[in-house]
Amino acid sequence: MIKQIAPDAEVLDVTHGISPQHVLQGALVLAHTLPYMPVGVHVAVVDPGVGGARKPLALRGTDGRLYVGPDNGILLIAADKLGGVEQVVEISEAAYMLESISSTFHGRDIFSPAAAHLASGVDLDKLGPALDAATLVRLEVPQPTIGTARIRATVLSVDRFGNVQLNLTRDHLEQVGIVPGTQVEVAVAFDRFFAVAARTFADVRPGDVVLYENSYRSIGLALNQGNAAQAFGTKVGAELRLSPVRG
Amino acid sequence: MIKQIAPDAEVLDVTHGISPQHVLQGALVLAHTLPYMPVGVHVAVVDPGVGGARKPLALRGTDGRLYVGPDNGILLIAADKLGGVEQVVEISEAAYMLESISSTFHGRDIFSPAAAHLASGVDLDKLGPALDAATLVRLEVPQPTIGTARIRATVLSVDRFGNVQLNLTRDHLEQVGIVPGTQVEVAVAFDRFFAVAARTFADVRPGDVVLYENSYRSIGLALNQGNAAQAFGTKVGAELRLSPVRG
Amino acid sequence: MIKQIAPDAEVLDVTHGISPQHVLQGALVLAHTLPYMPVGVHVAVVDPGVGGARKPLALRGTDGRLYVGPDNGILLIAADKLGGVEQVVEISEAAYMLESISSTFHGRDIFSPAAAHLASGVDLDKLGPALDAATLVRLEVPQPTIGTARIRATVLSVDRFGNVQLNLTRDHLEQVGIVPGTQVEVAVAFDRFFAVAARTFADVRPGDVVLYENSYRSIGLALNQGNAAQAFGTKVGAELRLSPVRG
Repeated sequence: MIKQIAPDAEVLDVTHGISPQHVLQGALVLAHTLPYMPVGVHVAVVDPGVGGARKPLALRGTDGRLYVGPDNGILLIAADKLGGVEQVVEISEAAYMLESISSTFHGRDIFSPAAAHLASGVDLDKLGPALDAATLVRLEVPQPTIGTARIRATVLSVDRFGNVQLNLTRDHLEQVGIVPGTQVEVAVAFDRFFAVAARTFADVRPGDVVLYENSYRSIGLALNQGNAAQAFGTKVGAELRLSPVRG
Repeated sequence: MIKQIAPDAEVLDVTHGISPQHVLQGALVLAHTLPYMPVGVHVAVVDPGVGGARKPLALRGTDGRLYVGPDNGILLIAADKLGGVEQVVEISEAAYMLESISSTFHGRDIFSPAAAHLASGVDLDKLGPALDAATLVRLEVPQPTIGTARIRATVLSVDRFGNVQLNLTRDHLEQVGIVPGTQVEVAVAFDRFFAVAARTFADVRPGDVVLYENSYRSIGLALNQGNAAQAFGTKVGAELRLSPVRG
Repeated sequence: MIKQIAPDAEVLDVTHGISPQHVLQGALVLAHTLPYMPVGVHVAVVDPGVGGARKPLALRGTDGRLYVGPDNGILLIAADKLGGVEQVVEISEAAYMLESISSTFHGRDIFSPAAAHLASGVDLDKLGPALDAATLVRLEVPQPTIGTARIRATVLSVDRFGNVQLNLTRDHLEQVGIVPGTQVEVAVAFDRFFAVAARTFADVRPGDVVLYENSYRSIGLALNQGNAAQAFGTKVGAELRLSPVRG
């Protein structure tokens, strides 16, 4: 679709692997990935509300990046993190959409055409009326509870290696005394197992369970050379309780 | 392979996700997708007969699109729908293939090289002798049976969301009185469940079973925010019986 | 990442489907694929040792190809097969890496930036100190045992069709008298089944088990129009014993 409208645009795929309907995962991947990508027009569509009342958005960040996607929060974690929103419009101008709009695939019919027109140099404010950035839907990222010797964390996503991404940073772990080398008791529902905090997989043995800082500076839980999510039956949204083992 | 022969050709991937050996699914995806793609050289390979008697084809549609693939029907639903076939040849000229042809991967050894040569400007009739378009293999798309108050439909494909695509259009549903809002009894083998006809997912609740018109103007069956194919054990080729529930 | 450093570089994805941590599979796919690809800068990262002592490498083959990846053997099967290594360096020059290096994702932080700089014309020896090619880690490809009437082979990989790739060539089969048409007894652990050696899938019936020469001139085992790996519970590393059935 993009190439029909903007034949010279270069299209880079970040991923087509977001779990169905998982808007928060899409928003986090976008926020984690964009700092490593060229400035451009960034389209993100995880859109369970397609065909309903949610608005189609196009917006410009303060760093010049343009974003296109539904008003369900998918764009805002990235845009807010990269300096905030400078201008936002509701995509409504028929000239910049497909002629016939389906009720179930606005990625093809509205978002990709809008992005292609922006990439071709169409001004943002041609796409539709201005909106107030403060009124846009924003997602709540679940926050951990940090006790004196225990953390309650939430699984934000699971990657294709089965590594479990938590809503934690190194700072959170340090607040309860978990540093590289610390043995950690991990409780998931009624199960309990032991992990070791480590800098990287090369510091532990195959089969060890590892708490590590991932490449986006948040904390992951992995089964070294295995699949942690499968082994522990851990799903997105699950709660994990972590406590350092006192020696 | 294409880039070795035609370094300036731009390669767009439609999908690498067709179910193994599912020629009809490949043919339908091609037919659904091409109207949204730039005119070009379109290669489609789902090829259970590779290495056997089926011919390698290159053809030109009346709209100028060029198609390359095996003579098993994969190209023809698209080409027929987009105006029909203007010219077709059997790819047989060794100069436009790899030097050494494997028996199991003509996508690499015959089809991609032929497509690359066409993209570089080689004339279609250089690739081999002309064939009569009427003699090409064409796939039968299963047709539904429409009764007075019941439809027998067939599952054409299942997408990665578990949404089930049927061989039906909105017209078929209307013939038995199913319109947006109608409750519908769906029978699969000995199982029975209820769905609701809706314009889009946003019109129903999470967990509702929905009959909807998909983005290719045919009818799909979905479990809103779930996986219908898994929930109902529905596979490609399965028969579904649909009846409106009289209130 | 590559496009930020080298906006004009063309990026071709070979695959993102290597099994997690399966360095040998990655090395074999690279070796099988490169002969069909343009000469360029080839990045391969399957990197269970990331963040540990293994060195990041950049090397030039005698045919002018450049390779970037970890020193765990992933590059060398391809480079050795395509004429050998001409020059190799350890990537260590900070100017050609990201500013901040994570402990778990050198594909993004070290390998892609190095490849992008090479693609932009940076000389190999700018990336770091020279290494001796003889000291690089090389992978052992398991070798078959060929008896008088039996072969012990090892499963090297399983593709997305469930076809099982063995460490055998046509020569190995011929040494025990297996040629197209021969019926073959295949033993996997305590199970036994029969296959037929064939030139291609089109030579056998749906449901037949086939031994065939795949498109990389090695031997595969397939269930025609089915999934052999699932049917026989065969995994990478498993041993198969093959014997021709005497008629």
